Amino acid sequence: MKTSISRRAFVGMGAAAVAALASEGATQPRAVGRGRRQYGERSPFEKSVRYFGPSSTPATGSSRTPLQDLFGIITPSSLHFERHHAGVPTIDPARHELLIHGLVSEPLIFTVKDLERMDSVSQVNFIECAGNSSSEHAGRPRATPQLSHGLLSSSEWTGVRLSTLLERVGVKPTARWVLAEGADACRHARSLPIEKALDDVIVAYGQNGEALRPEQGYPLRLLVPGWEGNVNVKWLRSLQLINQPAMTKDEAASYTDPLPNGQARHFTFVMEAKSVITRPAGGQKLDGPGSYEITGLAWSGRGRITQVDVSVNGEQAWQKARLQEPVLNKALTRFRLPWNWNGGETNIASRCQDETGYWQPTREQLVAVRGLVEGPDGFDHYNGIKWWRIQRSGEITYA
Amino acid sequence: MKTSISRRAFVGMGAAAVAALASEGATQPRAVGRGRRQYGERSPFEKSVRYFGPSSTPATGSSRTPLQDLFGIITPSSLHFERHHAGVPTIDPARHELLIHGLVSEPLIFTVKDLERMDSVSQVNFIECAGNSSSEHAGRPRATPQLSHGLLSSSEWTGVRLSTLLERVGVKPTARWVLAEGADACRHARSLPIEKALDDVIVAYGQNGEALRPEQGYPLRLLVPGWEGNVNVKWLRSLQLINQPAMTKDEAASYTDPLPNGQARHFTFVMEAKSVITRPAGGQKLDGPGSYEITGLAWSGRGRITQVDVSVNGEQAWQKARLQEPVLNKALTRFRLPWNWNGGETNIASRCQDETGYWQPTREQLVAVRGLVEGPDGFDHYNGIKWWRIQRSGEITYA
Repeated sequence: MKTSISRRAFVGMGAAAVAALASEGATQPRAVGRGRRQYGERSPFEKSVRYFGPSSTPATGSSRTPLQDLFGIITPSSLHFERHHAGVPTIDPARHELLIHGLVSEPLIFTVKDLERMDSVSQVNFIECAGNSSSEHAGRPRATPQLSHGLLSSSEWTGVRLSTLLERVGVKPTARWVLAEGADACRHARSLPIEKALDDVIVAYGQNGEALRPEQGYPLRLLVPGWEGNVNVKWLRSLQLINQPAMTKDEAASYTDPLPNGQARHFTFVMEAKSVITRPAGGQKLDGPGSYEITGLAWSGRGRITQVDVSVNGEQAWQKARLQEPVLNKALTRFRLPWNWNGGETNIASRCQDETGYWQPTREQLVAVRGLVEGPDGFDHYNGIKWWRIQRSGEITYA
Repeated sequence: MKTSISRRAFVGMGAAAVAALASEGATQPRAVGRGRRQYGERSPFEKSVRYFGPSSTPATGSSRTPLQDLFGIITPSSLHFERHHAGVPTIDPARHELLIHGLVSEPLIFTVKDLERMDSVSQVNFIECAGNSSSEHAGRPRATPQLSHGLLSSSEWTGVRLSTLLERVGVKPTARWVLAEGADACRHARSLPIEKALDDVIVAYGQNGEALRPEQGYPLRLLVPGWEGNVNVKWLRSLQLINQPAMTKDEAASYTDPLPNGQARHFTFVMEAKSVITRPAGGQKLDGPGSYEITGLAWSGRGRITQVDVSVNGEQAWQKARLQEPVLNKALTRFRLPWNWNGGETNIASRCQDETGYWQPTREQLVAVRGLVEGPDGFDHYNGIKWWRIQRSGEITYA
């Protein structure tokens, strides 16, 4: 194991040599560093950035989180993935209001300040775009975790439970859905069933300790734990209680799952259990045989992750990975497995199970059910196992 | 309760008025927002910054976290408090090395890349400067949570357990302490007992998902859960196994606790259980009588927080606050209590208990033991209950 560490060992060098190194630079002049900053920045040596996918206009499209560069389960807010359909609006929080109306006893308007005075909760939840990894389904595997799975991020969100707000306005018995609308130019809108709205949805104003970032909906967004990103409506301005779904563009034409029989599934909100190895992974290179940590992320829109397995030998054998505690509900779970690479070619992958007992499927299993008929927006809700191929050179590609 | 919300109610306005508001701007031209960014920034409307305490030179001193503006338990890395004695060095991680030597079988050097290949852990832990709130002990209460308690922050840290590294080098039985030294110009150094080193200390390279920030020790720091900030040596370059403490400047002359009898406690590492209300709190103003959420932070260097009480009526009655789950080990715990302010003058405070059964003391209790003899560096390790005074005008000051 030790030979895998690119270290200099001092055995046989004698105490004097070690002592010289320990006091390295002790007698040389050293410069005092720079002073304090009001609002810090990362080191200039850190270059990791979001990847911009193809887009028809500068203000629309998506950007992907560099999962391969991240640690733990918090995505730095500056690297949270983006998806917007009419650009990022600039909103003055002092002038922003949330209207709750429709099938309610008393329509009400809440300012951001109103919400910040109310009972609040904080919870770590992932958000994943429904279209994340769609190219994997289509048979075009992508070369890095960022490209294949980067429409996924995780934050500690803070806000008010939607159920608390709905209690205030008084929901009429005829209300079955909530239509959420954003303040972006296109007035992005989605319908949510009332059962979910009354469960664990929050109107969030906080992200990783500070206010939401503009790209994530500043100053208010809907946070719908475990459900496709598109329904987590950003720049939230209105919630209308209605008795049937509004069939907005993004639920009538898009964010549906076309099936081989020509029909399509609508309102398939939940992001099912999924995992991916982020290191070592495509686009990276191993420094020769030796010990490495295999690590990655697992998540499920249905609850907690209960197990992650890793294969380092094609499909022949699955080993149980260690899950970083605490394992949270509808949150990313970091998994790890020590691995000794013998220098040979091999394929590695992860698979996960959630608390419902469901196991992440293979691509073949998904294709058997959903076919390969690519819709206009590609496949949504793909959660197949992702394989990486380790080359003898140490270079890693998709399998 | 409803009258406390500064809302416009639409009862009696008729459906047409609500509908007009719901479609506000629907027929007006709307501008498409700005496009994607590779590395995001906060909204220009957000102005919260670290506070710079007095300093004798530009590159030394401290900056304080604006606790009153934060949500949840993650401190945004850009707002993590700073404390440095020779400025913030600029370190190229490709050239940085960690030497482990002294009473070991085999001295070893680890590069940052070596460490990133090894078995790792992620954990949320607070760091608190030993001198946090020292002015409260001295009888000079500060006017805002940032000023009184802002040498406190919390992150999700990722790195390698120090015990893993010590296993590699082989600790000799005579080794009782570890001397940790930073790569800053002053070579800041502190001694840690071997028992703690082998317990939960990590050599961290990750903070809130990305690399450590320069102010927090980029590219490597010691993370010593629950112990005073000063021993969490930043820009870590050397760990030397020794048989007694090195008695460096910061353990011989500073970071000690002077006692009324003229003696001083040394090596009082643990930050005891402590809490503070961050909203409503000093420097803020209530918008008239009505409902508010009282919220704040509690933490203990000895483990988990088990209970937080809040008084909204001087010392007469303590109410149990709700703790945000999950409550983590040696981490900040967010507490909350709904409160209806009747408009009268009152004092509010929090007190907490940790899993050892210890309750946060009053200032009077601490002064009775430690006196009021102010040392050259002020009082360290002060953890008394902090009171805020609500004025009839809604303005809040210290009590």
